[in-house]
Amino acid sequence: MRVGIIGTGITKFGEAWEKGLRELAVEAGVKALQEAGIEGREINAFYGGNMSGGRFVGQEHVAALIADRAGLNPAPATRVEAACASGGLAIREGYLGIRSGEYDCVVVLGIEKMTDVFTEDAATTLGGAGDQEWEGFFGATFPALYALMARRHMHDYGTTEEQMAMVAVKNHKNGALNPIAQYPFEITVEQVMKSSKIASPLKLLDCSPITDGAAAVVLASDKFIKEKGREAVWITGSGQASDTLALHDRKSLTELNATKIAAERAYCQAGVKSSDIDLAEVHDCFTIAEIMAVEDLGFVEKGKGGKAIEAGEFDLNSRLSVNPSGGLKACGHPVGATGVKQAVEIVNQLNGKCGKRQVKDAKIGLAHNVGGSGATCLVHIFQR
Amino acid sequence: MRVGIIGTGITKFGEAWEKGLRELAVEAGVKALQEAGIEGREINAFYGGNMSGGRFVGQEHVAALIADRAGLNPAPATRVEAACASGGLAIREGYLGIRSGEYDCVVVLGIEKMTDVFTEDAATTLGGAGDQEWEGFFGATFPALYALMARRHMHDYGTTEEQMAMVAVKNHKNGALNPIAQYPFEITVEQVMKSSKIASPLKLLDCSPITDGAAAVVLASDKFIKEKGREAVWITGSGQASDTLALHDRKSLTELNATKIAAERAYCQAGVKSSDIDLAEVHDCFTIAEIMAVEDLGFVEKGKGGKAIEAGEFDLNSRLSVNPSGGLKACGHPVGATGVKQAVEIVNQLNGKCGKRQVKDAKIGLAHNVGGSGATCLVHIFQR
Repeated sequence: MRVGIIGTGITKFGEAWEKGLRELAVEAGVKALQEAGIEGREINAFYGGNMSGGRFVGQEHVAALIADRAGLNPAPATRVEAACASGGLAIREGYLGIRSGEYDCVVVLGIEKMTDVFTEDAATTLGGAGDQEWEGFFGATFPALYALMARRHMHDYGTTEEQMAMVAVKNHKNGALNPIAQYPFEITVEQVMKSSKIASPLKLLDCSPITDGAAAVVLASDKFIKEKGREAVWITGSGQASDTLALHDRKSLTELNATKIAAERAYCQAGVKSSDIDLAEVHDCFTIAEIMAVEDLGFVEKGKGGKAIEAGEFDLNSRLSVNPSGGLKACGHPVGATGVKQAVEIVNQLNGKCGKRQVKDAKIGLAHNVGGSGATCLVHIFQR
Repeated sequence: MRVGIIGTGITKFGEAWEKGLRELAVEAGVKALQEAGIEGREINAFYGGNMSGGRFVGQEHVAALIADRAGLNPAPATRVEAACASGGLAIREGYLGIRSGEYDCVVVLGIEKMTDVFTEDAATTLGGAGDQEWEGFFGATFPALYALMARRHMHDYGTTEEQMAMVAVKNHKNGALNPIAQYPFEITVEQVMKSSKIASPLKLLDCSPITDGAAAVVLASDKFIKEKGREAVWITGSGQASDTLALHDRKSLTELNATKIAAERAYCQAGVKSSDIDLAEVHDCFTIAEIMAVEDLGFVEKGKGGKAIEAGEFDLNSRLSVNPSGGLKACGHPVGATGVKQAVEIVNQLNGKCGKRQVKDAKIGLAHNVGGSGATCLVHIFQR
């Protein structure tokens, strides 16, 4: 059985102080239903990706809350959580739900409302994506963990701080063309290099921001899609893998093993190679993360990610367009929403709806979503 | 495709101050694997039900953490959350994962570590299962919400405080025979009636306690089970339904619509009627909840639950054994673990392994797991 996406919806990413969790969710969900041209009663189930409603807004049981507000009761409502990979995981669970034969049409939504708490509390909450007892308790924040990876990548492969800065510059250049981006403007390498140190060698402009936002997709079985006479972008590969939560337990600091395994599974299922991919949304929570991602996904040889970025190989409409949306860096990173937002971008790209940031002749897209420092990775492949 | 349970594991429920989240999880998981007679490398995926690792122990990303500790990497690890129904939901998602054809063998684990915070903080965290903006913010705790239901049930149907007390008395009588129970001793109606008021008419001994614990089951496809030559208890029905989070949005305070719909789906799938059930583990977070559950599940006519309890109709080895384990009341209620613990009890009952609390000739069991005040309900039916 094939599973396709027939509708997408997304909110503006940013600081949505005037909107609550449920308002953001319904805004994205309604857009997705309208685009799909279906009604609430045709939806068999709801899957919601959300990292920490409990600590950000005091609300657990988030999927039922959204199903309630959206008028989807009594359809099953399921929240899944894998830190910053919660959105990608929600897509996979919705996809498996349809493949099980239990559902024909499912709404998948990712959401996070992060700006209702102080920044230091947000950082502590995000620390819950790593190993609280062995990392967070001793003061390791997420920038600190990724700084360790960056330092080692620089040591092993000669990657430079300027190359990392170029990831941010590229993604802001794309993001400047994306109306939902939190920071839709261009920046320069010099600005990144001069921005304040967060955890050396990572500087402020190497880091994705704290963001509110929601994104939704409508998934359906091929049977449902045919009956409704809809066009779809098909999910042709879905891979999920796990790794240790704590960095110190890993064999290598310069790769995410879970990315490699999830990608291998997704490529195998889709019957494509990394060189077949036309565009990719990868998890650039920090600039070093994108450099590692393009290596782990097989787009360049290990250790050559920095040089490839410098050579412009992943610019919009170059060899392979990476993060045409602007990535987490320019769009913002509402952690539970990000994985679904990546799918929204790829579906819109494959449908030729991305205006000035449109990737030409895009046929195969890949989404890469990472939880924590790599303990969960999801890779999905999408094709027209 | 059929899905069966080939192994169960559970920890002692109680105040596990000497054990962390990951230790409890591995203890239950290893027992389940040993009983199933399989090794970690044969497991294709892990599903973890957990309500609020974030607020109870500062740890999100709980499924990956447990998979890591249990040596299951790089198998996919997925946390699901639906408040106190997280455990039942994890079983359903594992079941759907196998039915999708993606997995042959899955470990499902429910866990909560609740005693690392002060009681008032635990109560606030549990409030996140209800509507935080419309209930929690205004001071409605969970005992208060269920007290509203109890008051209305008393008004509409003449249910008495003594009948509610008899639920607790029955469940403690069963729980006294259960080695994992947090409070394995008998109590009297008089003790319940004289216990301190929590939210009138609910008294201390009408309420399930705050508990640490974990429970696990190994699910497998019929093909895997046949190849391994294992015996299994089969999941013949799985129903999930949703309702409004906030009580004030419901048509009725004396029933859970989500229970009724989930049960209808599960009965229909299994091809059985409520009168076919030999034993049921129902969600007695408060005594009134069990009275409503036996009505909503169709075991007695609406409004007659209290009288049926009083007549002993749900005592061990009476017409229908309800909560032979001791229920949430006597066993304790580690919220994310409860739904899986219910399945563990039913599988052990159907396998004739429950010693002094064994239900005679048990062939068909039902588990009923509720999230919040009924916004999520899961009903599963199990058969030899």
